[in-house]
Amino acid sequence: MAEEVKLFKTWSSTFGLRVVWALKLKGIPYEAIDEDLSNKSALLLQYNPVHKKIPVLVHNGNPISESLVILEYIDETWKQNPILPQDPLHRARERFWAKFNDEKLLPSVWGAFTKEGKDREEAMAATMENLKFVEEELKGKKFFSGEKIGLVDLVFGWLANLISIFEEVTGFNIVGEGYPLLSAWMQEFSELPVIKDTWPPRDKMIIKYQALYDKYHPAK
Amino acid sequence: MAEEVKLFKTWSSTFGLRVVWALKLKGIPYEAIDEDLSNKSALLLQYNPVHKKIPVLVHNGNPISESLVILEYIDETWKQNPILPQDPLHRARERFWAKFNDEKLLPSVWGAFTKEGKDREEAMAATMENLKFVEEELKGKKFFSGEKIGLVDLVFGWLANLISIFEEVTGFNIVGEGYPLLSAWMQEFSELPVIKDTWPPRDKMIIKYQALYDKYHPAK
Repeated sequence: MAEEVKLFKTWSSTFGLRVVWALKLKGIPYEAIDEDLSNKSALLLQYNPVHKKIPVLVHNGNPISESLVILEYIDETWKQNPILPQDPLHRARERFWAKFNDEKLLPSVWGAFTKEGKDREEAMAATMENLKFVEEELKGKKFFSGEKIGLVDLVFGWLANLISIFEEVTGFNIVGEGYPLLSAWMQEFSELPVIKDTWPPRDKMIIKYQALYDKYHPAK
Repeated sequence: MAEEVKLFKTWSSTFGLRVVWALKLKGIPYEAIDEDLSNKSALLLQYNPVHKKIPVLVHNGNPISESLVILEYIDETWKQNPILPQDPLHRARERFWAKFNDEKLLPSVWGAFTKEGKDREEAMAATMENLKFVEEELKGKKFFSGEKIGLVDLVFGWLANLISIFEEVTGFNIVGEGYPLLSAWMQEFSELPVIKDTWPPRDKMIIKYQALYDKYHPAK
């Protein structure tokens, strides 16, 4: 059967990027459709009426939404280069950290970027505590998933790019010297053949995040 | 191998209950450990240092946290009475609605229960919109997962119990006449042999939620 694979994403979203990486890892050709979130396409709204968000993967006409759900779908549909291991306990561990990223780590970093005063201090403290768990997970391993990248690496992948952009825009030191394993992983991950050409242009990202930062922290 | 299965939960938590249902569905004997969340056990903190929350399933000494992760682990470990279907697209659909419950539906109902004034109105409006999606999902089906209950039924299961408790405590009409398929499902689900003896005592639940309600809405 001729496969038709389309991916609705944006040029900058980390949630879209993890799906791009999974498709590249599997060697699946796809058509990328970059959405403008200020003017969402009728197709996006039709494919994801509940969340009205990217990414949406459309495989032979069937839409799948929610990036973690999409990653599992990709892994179950195309078996080469597994994203998840076989053992149920290891699968559970990967899913646990993927959820941790989306529900704890990413929101804490976002809070440190967008909030002010005491709220920002709390978000920064939460970020540091969350990153300690991340650092701990890397002990004795090359990648989060072991010798090869897997679900947790794809989901934590945004750190390899956005942390340094946040640091440049805010002037804060987030990862710094305190997380040597994570720092090494960020370097290693971002230069993998399957990853290195996928990063959105850094100059455009700096402009985007500087504008967001200015919006959340208007000059008093 | 002699299996050792322990479940850390509370007497009332919906997140613990969905794991109880999954274990019962699979016919897996387990030891239940009811935690007091105001005085968490050292074992719970050891098994789930990241979230410090129930439920935690401990299988032959290996702890697994996060209820959705536990449900997938149970389904992958014990194959009888599948919780998820085989087809990747159907699996993605079930995972999508499970996430929707935890990230949209449950928070909106909780907001309607705990918030006041305009915030409450917004949470109630979000609840109604979310329940419309739920109602739509039931069209042409006996259970959310089809002819038999599956992941989505286990995850939406709290509705069959807590909605009527919220209605009794708040005096609000949440499901009422507007969601006939959901109302029928709530009845059917709550009386299934595997489910019906698992509900926490209603009188204790009313007392618990009345106290919570009074805390969030102190007399002015």
